[in-house]
Amino acid sequence: MKKLLIANRGEIAVRIIRAAREMGIATVAVVSEADRGSNAERLADESVVIGPAPAGLSYLNHEAVLTAAAETGADAIHPGYGFLSENADFARKVTDAGLVWVGPDPDTIVLMGDKSRARRAAIEAGVPVLAGTDGVLDVTADIESIADGIGYPLVVKASAGGGGRGIRRIESRAEVRGTVEVAQAEAQAAFNSNEVYFERFVTRARHVEVQIFGDGETWVHLGDRDCSMQRRQQKVIEEAPAPGLPEDLRQRMRDTSVELARQSRYVGAGTVEFLYDPDRQEIAFIEMNTRLQVEHPISEAITGIDLVREQLRIASGERLGYTQQDIEFEGHAFEFRINAEDPDSSFMPSPGRIEALELSGGPGVRADFGFSAGQTVMPFYDSLLGKLIVWDRDREHALARAARALDEVEISGIKSTVPLMRRLVALDDFSAAQHYTTYIESVPGLLGASA
Amino acid sequence: MKKLLIANRGEIAVRIIRAAREMGIATVAVVSEADRGSNAERLADESVVIGPAPAGLSYLNHEAVLTAAAETGADAIHPGYGFLSENADFARKVTDAGLVWVGPDPDTIVLMGDKSRARRAAIEAGVPVLAGTDGVLDVTADIESIADGIGYPLVVKASAGGGGRGIRRIESRAEVRGTVEVAQAEAQAAFNSNEVYFERFVTRARHVEVQIFGDGETWVHLGDRDCSMQRRQQKVIEEAPAPGLPEDLRQRMRDTSVELARQSRYVGAGTVEFLYDPDRQEIAFIEMNTRLQVEHPISEAITGIDLVREQLRIASGERLGYTQQDIEFEGHAFEFRINAEDPDSSFMPSPGRIEALELSGGPGVRADFGFSAGQTVMPFYDSLLGKLIVWDRDREHALARAARALDEVEISGIKSTVPLMRRLVALDDFSAAQHYTTYIESVPGLLGASA
Repeated sequence: MKKLLIANRGEIAVRIIRAAREMGIATVAVVSEADRGSNAERLADESVVIGPAPAGLSYLNHEAVLTAAAETGADAIHPGYGFLSENADFARKVTDAGLVWVGPDPDTIVLMGDKSRARRAAIEAGVPVLAGTDGVLDVTADIESIADGIGYPLVVKASAGGGGRGIRRIESRAEVRGTVEVAQAEAQAAFNSNEVYFERFVTRARHVEVQIFGDGETWVHLGDRDCSMQRRQQKVIEEAPAPGLPEDLRQRMRDTSVELARQSRYVGAGTVEFLYDPDRQEIAFIEMNTRLQVEHPISEAITGIDLVREQLRIASGERLGYTQQDIEFEGHAFEFRINAEDPDSSFMPSPGRIEALELSGGPGVRADFGFSAGQTVMPFYDSLLGKLIVWDRDREHALARAARALDEVEISGIKSTVPLMRRLVALDDFSAAQHYTTYIESVPGLLGASA
Repeated sequence: MKKLLIANRGEIAVRIIRAAREMGIATVAVVSEADRGSNAERLADESVVIGPAPAGLSYLNHEAVLTAAAETGADAIHPGYGFLSENADFARKVTDAGLVWVGPDPDTIVLMGDKSRARRAAIEAGVPVLAGTDGVLDVTADIESIADGIGYPLVVKASAGGGGRGIRRIESRAEVRGTVEVAQAEAQAAFNSNEVYFERFVTRARHVEVQIFGDGETWVHLGDRDCSMQRRQQKVIEEAPAPGLPEDLRQRMRDTSVELARQSRYVGAGTVEFLYDPDRQEIAFIEMNTRLQVEHPISEAITGIDLVREQLRIASGERLGYTQQDIEFEGHAFEFRINAEDPDSSFMPSPGRIEALELSGGPGVRADFGFSAGQTVMPFYDSLLGKLIVWDRDREHALARAARALDEVEISGIKSTVPLMRRLVALDDFSAAQHYTTYIESVPGLLGASA
């Protein structure tokens, strides 16, 4: 690999450029017209403007990205997360053009992108799954009885969904037929497929996940993460390892995730997502993400392994070169997603010029930002400014360090989620790891209070 | 410890505030009139203006600092490095006032501050020393014969010196008497003591050192560091562990340093400095510094131990709570001192307003800075803006990461040493760890070249 095109923007484009530069790989940033002057453009060796905002006209435009690769002589494409990262069509076009696709095989992307097929693959690998249909729901069958067998509340999910989209809750037998029909219609509109399936609904669920990595011959995990602090099903704080997880469940989750990777002969970085039910002390497969996650730095922090470097190494045809025994886990890490949003006004996006951006520093603090002071946050994209990652020897110290680091951050000109983060890390429920995926919405006064 | 006064400024004041805040200890920053609006003032819970620049009228003014402590109700003082950190008189005044002194016992400061007594203590602890006088040179004796016995070139050093000051080289027997007299006069003027001693001069010496730590009952080392990249005997790049050191010497250096700490019943953080002669493969004691070093973060990076937190814990009366076996070393770290100086004009200080200060981020990069964009570097103090600390799994990767991180730094409005740092990390001699303490001055074109 000599020259890598990064088909993304913001902090993840910067993250990938950093890894490539350290490896001596030249970098090409593709930027939309709205992203001219971004840090990705500034830090890359070359950049190409591939079209206007919104993303459909630039970052999601297959031909524009492939043309930029051809024109600059790039021999590899890293898709980052979001955008084209789990688009098997695009991945095939990349390899068809003779370029290296930094990610798993397109067939693996297709398999894991189909949630009912992925669920079946998980079952075959011994990964625990939630009570539910084992594949696509046969809507011509007696779906009320199927639902009765799973128990209420349950959810109907689009097979092609993901990231919290295409999910509806069913409270009772009377709602089954109607809700399934609505879900089918929504799935058809959103994903061009009306396939849906059932799963038990867990009231106070925690979101846990395992980072796996492989070269197609050897597979390892890089530990687990907890991403239960969410707002509207979007992660806002992640941590590694997952706190309060019974050790036998943690080990089973890790082992079966590696087994799922092995059975799909997985290449590169992937994440197996689980739901953890603290009341029943049960874990259950949600889905597998066939890309780098936003929260990958916390796994890097507790293992010392640079995941993007590993992705680039493996995509270049190198072997893993180590086994599970060689990976040591040390300490505890948190990641805080700093968004340009107003947490006290329903997380309304807050685009505008960043007048000042004073990040934190000192021991155990890492800043991964896509923006600098003086730049403008555009309204066309997700609102992630960057991430603050904090490590310390154990969870208690890491939390104290996180509070300190968040106190130091100063962002002016736009609203950010920093004030909410400060409130969250000060909560007893968070110290005690008693939060769950709907916690932020459930606790009165957490939103709408002034910092 | 409830409230800590930090008797320092710049990045080290910020560093100490960070550690205290994470421990729930309130902080008082003392600032000179010139340092109003500094980050130390901004980040501390309280601040007191203790006088005008220069330091003699504020940071070095014992009474002003002690008065600030009394007025704010601080119960402890951390001196940082430089300024009052190795001033036994001040340390005694602190404890006499009923306050906690975050540092070793004043008697230990006195012992190690007297270089000929320190040398004798080192010999008693089994620390290898350079050929030279075992204590103060008796100038009434036949000093030419003593010099002959050590061999030429040798150096005459002021007993009370330190940090490269009060040192003169002697090339031959004919120069002995005259140079000793000059050195005595200089020592008298600079340190109010005309005591001097001889040491062998090593042409291409490396500066290596061991970080020790103890609670008065248990002593450990936190590994070694190499600080050979210097300009005018001031460290500019440090790394941990020391590269290219024979393992038996490394172990001996570490073990005897711990022994020296044990024999002096050392309390807190200290550094035993050595000279390493790569030609003879010999190490020799230089001095022991009874304070936190500028370069302490690289030891933190390879051990995961927060040294300032440890200082505050031990000063509060806690026990160490771990032994040498519990300390694990992982990877390699570099520290780059970013100074407001022009490396291409004899390192002339470059005070002024910092228009932009774009630091680096991403995996393995830590920034410890005392300044932010928009602030002004005053001409009254040393020119350290901050430090960039880079960690990776091994020296080769850490060096590549350092090059990447340094490339990202943008400082405008003032000159900085960043361009020189970029040149240094690109040198084959540095990759091969073939540099030595006079390397920067010895290599033509390294200084004065445009970046």
